[in-house]
Amino acid sequence: MSKYEEKTIIGETLYEGKIITLRVEEVELPDGGHAKRELIKHPGAVAIVAVTEDHKLVLVEQYRKALERTMIEIPAGKIEANEEPAITAIRELEEETGYGARDFTYIQSFATSPGFADEIIHLYLAQGLYSVEQPAEGDEDEFIGLLEVTVEEAEKMMETGEIFDAKTAFAVLYVKQLLSQV
Amino acid sequence: MSKYEEKTIIGETLYEGKIITLRVEEVELPDGGHAKRELIKHPGAVAIVAVTEDHKLVLVEQYRKALERTMIEIPAGKIEANEEPAITAIRELEEETGYGARDFTYIQSFATSPGFADEIIHLYLAQGLYSVEQPAEGDEDEFIGLLEVTVEEAEKMMETGEIFDAKTAFAVLYVKQLLSQV
Repeated sequence: MSKYEEKTIIGETLYEGKIITLRVEEVELPDGGHAKRELIKHPGAVAIVAVTEDHKLVLVEQYRKALERTMIEIPAGKIEANEEPAITAIRELEEETGYGARDFTYIQSFATSPGFADEIIHLYLAQGLYSVEQPAEGDEDEFIGLLEVTVEEAEKMMETGEIFDAKTAFAVLYVKQLLSQV
Repeated sequence: MSKYEEKTIIGETLYEGKIITLRVEEVELPDGGHAKRELIKHPGAVAIVAVTEDHKLVLVEQYRKALERTMIEIPAGKIEANEEPAITAIRELEEETGYGARDFTYIQSFATSPGFADEIIHLYLAQGLYSVEQPAEGDEDEFIGLLEVTVEEAEKMMETGEIFDAKTAFAVLYVKQLLSQV
């Protein structure tokens, strides 16, 4: 047991939606005090760092209602029930970009908002990209545009705020290091 | 107006907590169809990439109830009402690590979970660190440990999953690049 552990004394599920669940829990702190924690449960997601033969990073553009703006991000998607993350990654890359990849490798996983949510993103590197002839279609409520940019262009887009997403910012630095080692 | 915009038709606030608010909105899609969006509103946060004179990254260790595990992250904290993010960053660095910084600069901001939350993290670089004699204390429900690691150690901790947090993963790559340019 961690010396920092917070034990749940009592908890209540206040909302169970299609994607997220809201729980409020009363916890016992390491010093015996109590605190309230507001917690979001999420099924987890994958994101794909897809790099073309000419060393461009594949990005998608879509409206993000939570932020009320169009966001430019690396391809990503929620893990469906009982789906292996690697399968989600292959599926989402095809649905969102029309690409398949000859070379798919796991990079790492991380929590996106540990202060209130359990969402974990599993990151994959996709290289050896090819166009899938009749790509699977994505969710019918997703409208997505496709971009391919160099690392220098992506860095510029971080400076201007056009890229404004944590996993994508990580991906830009990751690809920069990857390509500098080639 | 963005061609991808989703207009709110009707919305409802289902929970207003101390930190997060849950809204469910019915939106009109670009093709006229409808969809439901589950949205978390969050006040936003800052995170500090603090680098010591001997080129170590300052990390904090704390229990994250949402993930039911101890997490190792860069220092971070929520923005209080009417607080400038730069002030939050100085305050949180002192509260969580006992450090002040002679050299505080803005790096960039990003959304952590754009699929369902509006949380934005503003990242700052803190250098020229010094120990504050009587540092301000943090929230009484926060129990935090302090670590200082080299970039190589941090990279190892990403591989093993000890570092398992998006902003911290970004920070490790960022500091690696920063120090390689020194």
